[in-house]
Amino acid sequence: MSDKISVCIVGSGNWGSAIAKIVGVNCATLPQFEKCVTMYVYEEMIDGKKLTEIINTTHENVKYLPGHKLPENVVAVPDLIDACKNADILIFVVPHQFIPNFCKTLLGKIKPNAVAISLIKGFDKAEGGGIDLISHIITRHLKIPCSVLMGANLANEVAQGNFCETTIGCQDIKYAKTLRDLFQSQNFRVVVVDDSDAVEVCGALKNIVATGAGFVDGLGLGDNTKAAVIRLGLMEMVRFVDVFYPGSKLSTFFESCGVADLITTCYGGRNRRVAEAFVKTGKTIAELETEMLNGQKLQGPPTAEEVNYMLKNKGLEDKFPLFTAIHKICTNQLKVQDLIDCIRNHPEHMDEPIIVQPKL
Amino acid sequence: MSDKISVCIVGSGNWGSAIAKIVGVNCATLPQFEKCVTMYVYEEMIDGKKLTEIINTTHENVKYLPGHKLPENVVAVPDLIDACKNADILIFVVPHQFIPNFCKTLLGKIKPNAVAISLIKGFDKAEGGGIDLISHIITRHLKIPCSVLMGANLANEVAQGNFCETTIGCQDIKYAKTLRDLFQSQNFRVVVVDDSDAVEVCGALKNIVATGAGFVDGLGLGDNTKAAVIRLGLMEMVRFVDVFYPGSKLSTFFESCGVADLITTCYGGRNRRVAEAFVKTGKTIAELETEMLNGQKLQGPPTAEEVNYMLKNKGLEDKFPLFTAIHKICTNQLKVQDLIDCIRNHPEHMDEPIIVQPKL
Repeated sequence: MSDKISVCIVGSGNWGSAIAKIVGVNCATLPQFEKCVTMYVYEEMIDGKKLTEIINTTHENVKYLPGHKLPENVVAVPDLIDACKNADILIFVVPHQFIPNFCKTLLGKIKPNAVAISLIKGFDKAEGGGIDLISHIITRHLKIPCSVLMGANLANEVAQGNFCETTIGCQDIKYAKTLRDLFQSQNFRVVVVDDSDAVEVCGALKNIVATGAGFVDGLGLGDNTKAAVIRLGLMEMVRFVDVFYPGSKLSTFFESCGVADLITTCYGGRNRRVAEAFVKTGKTIAELETEMLNGQKLQGPPTAEEVNYMLKNKGLEDKFPLFTAIHKICTNQLKVQDLIDCIRNHPEHMDEPIIVQPKL
Repeated sequence: MSDKISVCIVGSGNWGSAIAKIVGVNCATLPQFEKCVTMYVYEEMIDGKKLTEIINTTHENVKYLPGHKLPENVVAVPDLIDACKNADILIFVVPHQFIPNFCKTLLGKIKPNAVAISLIKGFDKAEGGGIDLISHIITRHLKIPCSVLMGANLANEVAQGNFCETTIGCQDIKYAKTLRDLFQSQNFRVVVVDDSDAVEVCGALKNIVATGAGFVDGLGLGDNTKAAVIRLGLMEMVRFVDVFYPGSKLSTFFESCGVADLITTCYGGRNRRVAEAFVKTGKTIAELETEMLNGQKLQGPPTAEEVNYMLKNKGLEDKFPLFTAIHKICTNQLKVQDLIDCIRNHPEHMDEPIIVQPKL
């Protein structure tokens, strides 16, 4: 048995394949890692051939990341348990709805000392309502720590090797160096923080803010107003984490997972785009998802709904007037024209005009 | 003699006239303020009439903010000393190069207990080199405290009454409430912090970052890279304030003067636009200023130069690789194509991969 660190990538979509390019090279070159990286690939037939066989012979994921070569030491494996059973590090990068079943399949079949890291954006709905973080689901099911990696990381740009940054929210400081070495490349720059929950929650909440930014664009309110809505959204993100995931640091929101990902999502991104169309066309979100996204679902509106459930439960809706208004607009309880009225007396503006202290 | 607070607006350009709309209404309606607000107007002839007379009869600054009515209690005064002599609060909003001479004219002619607030973006060059803050110049010359007001505040949008936020950096907490009351309106939302220097420095440094964002746009590097450059720029802003204006709070960078103004400037704004053209056309900054800005000067490149002077003096260029690279690109010491190479090993990425602590 080797004492090198074995890595498995659970997932092979666009983002999973992009990250496989980086992780594969690092495992091939850094002495602490086992060279062979397994990649769990959901088996499907492409022009009469198995996708795993195509990947293992041509080293290209022709379905999800065409035009890019994967390192040859990344080996596609169609069986989930086979892919994972020897791994010391499990990189989860599948659509979030698969996670509970994947975990059930893997329970008891992985190394007891394995650690996980989730690259999955989004969240699950908790029983009853509210947000259930993907990393928490993995830890609950598999009884292993789960870190997260999030940032302003459009998969295709990462695959192209354009310079960017990312944030690892580390469950335990002792994994920090290993995880950074596994993911960092010349053009994929990693900052490690210990605020795992805050890092993951930022990735969900940003979509609410981007929906609000899209409303402002649709209403034609201009640059000042858009900047104000994005900033107030950021402050509600900070407050939300402070209430529901206490102990986080303000500095985490300055990382790629925070302000950088938020900016990118509020200026590009489909939540913004559909929200703008929502105002301009008067159609419902569902109609626009069908028309503009081929029926794919936006993340902003359902995130706003679960967040609203959590806020309402604690009687905190009025402390989060932007999140609350966006939810009400998405669900036709409020006219989008009333958005600004709802945030004019924001707690950020109504505190006594004394020195604002860091909130975290 | 009334014990109400008298206000004078020193300046009547686009931004001065926009703010006069808000300040005029507040002084007319709030009991603590003297109703009449004087506005120093540089006298000029418009179609054979004096601008001050036009403003005082039509209540419109036809030259600098046409199409907007000023409140009737805002009175244009062509003599600087006459305008200022009875004021308890002096709002400075003139091009920064006029400030030293204005102060010389006013020394000994204003109330000894008057306070100033500067709405002036930009800075002066210190003797020898480096940044001299406008608020510091005012305080040095007039021996009175000078607060600042900065934020994502395009003047025309403020004049139109679109919703936005601003930040007051207050010299002394005892002025916080008065200054907020003077500037806050239903659509102009004020947050007061005690970090006056940080608020003002943000307004200068953001133009360097926007120049870098424009380079990224010109190079066609995509959304991830642009987000990374903006974020690294923000982190260098934080570090710069920490070194040269110590004692500031990290939370100040979350205010409108920080992240909000930075975003607006990096997505809109002429520094970004000219920097993009710099890459795409290969022309010099000076040529582009002539072509694109009617000969007006950009703020990003000269700010980068003075900042570089300060960094070089302290041997800190390598701790600020983005600011340094942008300065070198603007002055043809570095090819714009080498920008990313300069920030790849940014101190943000090279710290030991342990927990990142708040830097302020």
